[in-house]
Amino acid sequence: MSLDYLFEPSSIAIIGATVKPEKVGYAILKNIIDGGYKGQIFPVNPKYEAILGLKAYKSVEDIKKDVDLAIIVVPIKLVPDIMVQLGKKGIKSAVVISAGGKETGEEGKKIEEEILSIAKKYNIRFLGPNCFGFINTELNLNANFGSSMPLKGDTALISQSGALFASILDWAISENIGFSYCISTGNMADLEFGELINYLGTKKNVKRILIYMESIYDAYKFVRYSKEVIKKLPVIITKSGRTEAGKKAAVSHTGALAGKDFLYSACFERLGALRADTVELMFDLTEAFSKQPLPEGNRFAILTNAGGPGVLSADRLGNWNIKPAQLEKETFIRLDSILPPAWSRGNPVDILGDATPERYRQALEILLEAKEIDGIVGILTPQFMTKPYETAKEVVNLLYEKREIKKPFYFSVLGGEKVKSARSFLDKSSIATYETPEEAVDCMVLAWKEHYLKNLVNNDVIIKPEFTIPEEKRKAFVKELLSKGKKLLSVYETKQLLQKYDIPVNKTFLVKEKEEIKSLDIEFPVVVKIQSPDILHKTDIGGVIFPVNSIQQLLSAFDEVINNAKTYKPDANIEGVIIEQFIKDGFELILGSSKDRIFGQYIVFGTGGKFVEFVKDVSFGFPPLTKNFAQLLMENTNIYNLLKKGFRNIPPANLEKLKTVLIRFSYMLVENPEIEEIDINPLMVKGDDIFAVDGRIKLSKTTEKHLIFD
Amino acid sequence: MSLDYLFEPSSIAIIGATVKPEKVGYAILKNIIDGGYKGQIFPVNPKYEAILGLKAYKSVEDIKKDVDLAIIVVPIKLVPDIMVQLGKKGIKSAVVISAGGKETGEEGKKIEEEILSIAKKYNIRFLGPNCFGFINTELNLNANFGSSMPLKGDTALISQSGALFASILDWAISENIGFSYCISTGNMADLEFGELINYLGTKKNVKRILIYMESIYDAYKFVRYSKEVIKKLPVIITKSGRTEAGKKAAVSHTGALAGKDFLYSACFERLGALRADTVELMFDLTEAFSKQPLPEGNRFAILTNAGGPGVLSADRLGNWNIKPAQLEKETFIRLDSILPPAWSRGNPVDILGDATPERYRQALEILLEAKEIDGIVGILTPQFMTKPYETAKEVVNLLYEKREIKKPFYFSVLGGEKVKSARSFLDKSSIATYETPEEAVDCMVLAWKEHYLKNLVNNDVIIKPEFTIPEEKRKAFVKELLSKGKKLLSVYETKQLLQKYDIPVNKTFLVKEKEEIKSLDIEFPVVVKIQSPDILHKTDIGGVIFPVNSIQQLLSAFDEVINNAKTYKPDANIEGVIIEQFIKDGFELILGSSKDRIFGQYIVFGTGGKFVEFVKDVSFGFPPLTKNFAQLLMENTNIYNLLKKGFRNIPPANLEKLKTVLIRFSYMLVENPEIEEIDINPLMVKGDDIFAVDGRIKLSKTTEKHLIFD
Repeated sequence: MSLDYLFEPSSIAIIGATVKPEKVGYAILKNIIDGGYKGQIFPVNPKYEAILGLKAYKSVEDIKKDVDLAIIVVPIKLVPDIMVQLGKKGIKSAVVISAGGKETGEEGKKIEEEILSIAKKYNIRFLGPNCFGFINTELNLNANFGSSMPLKGDTALISQSGALFASILDWAISENIGFSYCISTGNMADLEFGELINYLGTKKNVKRILIYMESIYDAYKFVRYSKEVIKKLPVIITKSGRTEAGKKAAVSHTGALAGKDFLYSACFERLGALRADTVELMFDLTEAFSKQPLPEGNRFAILTNAGGPGVLSADRLGNWNIKPAQLEKETFIRLDSILPPAWSRGNPVDILGDATPERYRQALEILLEAKEIDGIVGILTPQFMTKPYETAKEVVNLLYEKREIKKPFYFSVLGGEKVKSARSFLDKSSIATYETPEEAVDCMVLAWKEHYLKNLVNNDVIIKPEFTIPEEKRKAFVKELLSKGKKLLSVYETKQLLQKYDIPVNKTFLVKEKEEIKSLDIEFPVVVKIQSPDILHKTDIGGVIFPVNSIQQLLSAFDEVINNAKTYKPDANIEGVIIEQFIKDGFELILGSSKDRIFGQYIVFGTGGKFVEFVKDVSFGFPPLTKNFAQLLMENTNIYNLLKKGFRNIPPANLEKLKTVLIRFSYMLVENPEIEEIDINPLMVKGDDIFAVDGRIKLSKTTEKHLIFD
Repeated sequence: MSLDYLFEPSSIAIIGATVKPEKVGYAILKNIIDGGYKGQIFPVNPKYEAILGLKAYKSVEDIKKDVDLAIIVVPIKLVPDIMVQLGKKGIKSAVVISAGGKETGEEGKKIEEEILSIAKKYNIRFLGPNCFGFINTELNLNANFGSSMPLKGDTALISQSGALFASILDWAISENIGFSYCISTGNMADLEFGELINYLGTKKNVKRILIYMESIYDAYKFVRYSKEVIKKLPVIITKSGRTEAGKKAAVSHTGALAGKDFLYSACFERLGALRADTVELMFDLTEAFSKQPLPEGNRFAILTNAGGPGVLSADRLGNWNIKPAQLEKETFIRLDSILPPAWSRGNPVDILGDATPERYRQALEILLEAKEIDGIVGILTPQFMTKPYETAKEVVNLLYEKREIKKPFYFSVLGGEKVKSARSFLDKSSIATYETPEEAVDCMVLAWKEHYLKNLVNNDVIIKPEFTIPEEKRKAFVKELLSKGKKLLSVYETKQLLQKYDIPVNKTFLVKEKEEIKSLDIEFPVVVKIQSPDILHKTDIGGVIFPVNSIQQLLSAFDEVINNAKTYKPDANIEGVIIEQFIKDGFELILGSSKDRIFGQYIVFGTGGKFVEFVKDVSFGFPPLTKNFAQLLMENTNIYNLLKKGFRNIPPANLEKLKTVLIRFSYMLVENPEIEEIDINPLMVKGDDIFAVDGRIKLSKTTEKHLIFD
């Protein structure tokens, strides 16, 4: 059933409307009336004959006309009954403003569940409970109690916090940001982010969606409903609870058991949504996206009439690990021909403190036409010779003339009084304007990231790799171990599984009898380890010998570890001796997976070794990995640059081969949802050589699935 | 000679004043007149009889009265002659506005030097060249051409960029920030940051100093002049060129060869100055510092009437690795007694969306009185029941009543229209007010850092450690090696030097004859290495054997490395064989030093090992280290937490002992300025054991000194 009944109703009943101005039931009715809504409005309250000049009804049953939407403002305990009435009356949608749901504890949670089950029975879709309502500016419908009507625009807002919903809208009015839809989700007992995004994506007057999010309750649903819309539209999400401290506060606030924050980031990225750290940045991006095209690359120019802010801008680009673009010779010659000799002769393009509006225009024109530049951050400081207003006019005219060049220009106009008229002129123009160079640079980089992510999701390749061993046999291994009651797999078993998925391991043999050794295809040096479930700290008891350089040494090492083990624990169950090829140099990586209660199976990749938690150079993804997201998983780590270039005596890694390993690993997870945790550390990489050297797996009987992005 | 002649003149000559409104020589005269300056003003220009209603003079000689200050606005080529005229007339100070100095290249640099040498001859002190002038609001003296007169206040501003000087002042007017002095330094041929800070520090109406800096030319002078003032006053510095990209832009902008950016940070920290990344943050801090006391610790409370912004604030604290403070039981009980049951029952203290002004006041009062809280960030969002203006009034009144409790409260008032009257009331109050919770949190943390740094510099202990070996002998070692032409010291020599400074090394022997081995006090296992200046890559030619576990193995290893060396290079000069005690586990740290052309000798400390440049976990300091800054050098690394707690099988480090090693190391640098570079990597640390295991030193004949902070 369409959500149009809810968000584009022809008629609305307000259940709990009242004449008392201090009550929410008054405020919401008044906002609807004052907003200029043209549909029918039915206040429902048995105590009154009329409210705010409208006839009041004893109950919804009393309303003899069709009602599309019911807004419920009564105490939450009464809501289940009201829902039954709605159902009987055939009302298809509701907004439950009432607080007292799961945010207040167990009892509230039960009422919420009751409301939901009644709604399901009658096919009623609803927002809330514990929400501020919503706004549809096209219909002049202000069905909320926290905010006055915002400007019309083509941006939609979804907020999980009512208070922030009100603050954002109040702020947006002073910032000239217009909206088509504004939705306060409340507790999302029924409608949650995914379906709302899905719905808004069908609307012509929704060009982008801003979201303030605290937590997702059902990541599977979120991904399923939102993925197609996020492929098309910019979706900018400010998610709180980034840090442990914030997460703790968020949990106490919403009663939600939030998933791991870094998985939100990974999930947004995989969908193609942009995460913005602050509400301010979300606004800045809204201005950028609504006014200017996205940059198609990250080769940026800085155009400035002052050196200092040029340096600050280059610094800010540096924060994102981006250098200002190198100017081509042709661009340089063109700039040189129109600028005074003292110009910076490089990027930032400093056209000096005495720059006239004409000079600014000319320099900007050259940069717009320069093929090596993807986007331009302009800076104007009010100096003695500067004419801010005239410069702004020249710039706006030029950009209009050159509008077929799809290249963004964001304008940072510094100062206060002296640039007021220029700013207010620019605000009405199609140029995104910022008070500081830092804001302009951040937006430019994130606009590029938006382009980059959309490109990743829309041009991705999903190919399940060929495996040597057929699927049935691949899958049988884990199931067999589980059926034997195995939960923690040894290094040897872990490597056996990896090999079934064609993930290379260093040569590893489990030897039971000494005689077997001579027939093995061994590459020295090797490490010799006792294999026994009863001996945990092998090194301490002399159960590890290393390096072993010859058959002779190996044979005596075999005896030695067995003797040491027997001395230590005479009744130990000795399964044999492990002989592992020793991989000397190479990058030590980690490749692993775990499960999150919200996001399910996820993949970890990055710098490995003993200090893995300390170095904290890992990135996260979801199985199965696609070509683009396997690549991004690597690129999102710092060690990627070393892998690409090599480091001292370690040659550059074969990144294509590594990518294939990541993809194979991800399908191993998909085919074996019983893998609760796996850690390969180190995954040794040097040149073409990739070896899983050490690892462990934890299994569980599970039916949980991975998220499905494609 | 006092700079009062310059900044508090009784009379001013403007050389190059003119009647043409488009000229700087007009603008600056007009600004001085319009500003309401009460002293005497002498325009100097041979072309006119009068300018802007004032009698004009042919030259300074023509002025028959005393002149305190000359402002020079003529082309730079004429400035040397003008300087001579000033000198002859006995004028003691000048502001050289004229551009064309070292920012334009070699020729300009020469003129600048000429101007300086004439000024020195006549004892004239001057600002510039290439500056915008200065402002002294107390005297109503607006001697600049970039900006109108700012509000009066007790903040001083020094800017190295003229354009930013103008933008900052223009912005400050709309932000209600008042100044006592505003100085555009230009190229700092004579007066630079140090002396200006030193001068401003003597003024009663300078309570804090804001600096926009691109580079320091003479760090020794900067430190010498500024250190006493920075001990007393907040000095907030926005230094550009933080990143490589920014630094490159800065160098092209100012023609300056800037020092390493991280050394600016280390130098500011050592002085007790605060670095702010953006001009915006500098302003935010100005408001905080001028209105509220500094927090004496980092136990912060967040008071909010909305959950969402509370979470965002906790997140932002988390960015700084700070958790919201734990409330004591007493505070909890007091809050619980006045708040509705649904309050957050923790910190952030969420007093709910229907909070009245009275409830806000009561909760704030409890937090102000809570001994476990050092500072409070308040958040107010406009919700249906919220009365922003009344809440603001309650808060201001309460803070006035409770003013004897020296505890900061910063107020983040969200929204736009609905909170306008509250904001404008708060702007005039003594409460620092911010638009976003993030700004308020950043300021609170940096205000605490200001308190923390001031405490470090004002309560520091400088004790040169006792050494076993007398100073003469300690110093003789390096000089002797240098006199033999040694520049690169071997590991063995490096360790010899370290031992002279009582820095512990792992047992290391240089053995020439095999027979010596038996008499050595060896702890196995050891590493055996060939020692020859002719063999660089020892490992590759079999010149390293490891592990060696017994005397027997050692004796044969001795022969083996010598044989391998001789096979590789029959004529190699073999100095002997190095036998080093092998240190197995432990934290691998780096301790080193290098020289910067601006900042001289500096110290590096942090996570060591092969990937030291990749892990990038190092901090920087200057010799000699004091107690507090040796401590800070450790604390500023991430590995400090592991050192403190231990990691897996590595026990916690004896941090007091490690600190002593750092201090000894720093005095080794002070006593041996010939150490151009030294790297100890790894410095192995486990528990009480600290060993310099590997290292190298590069020497040079040098007279350069270290900075002197104390």
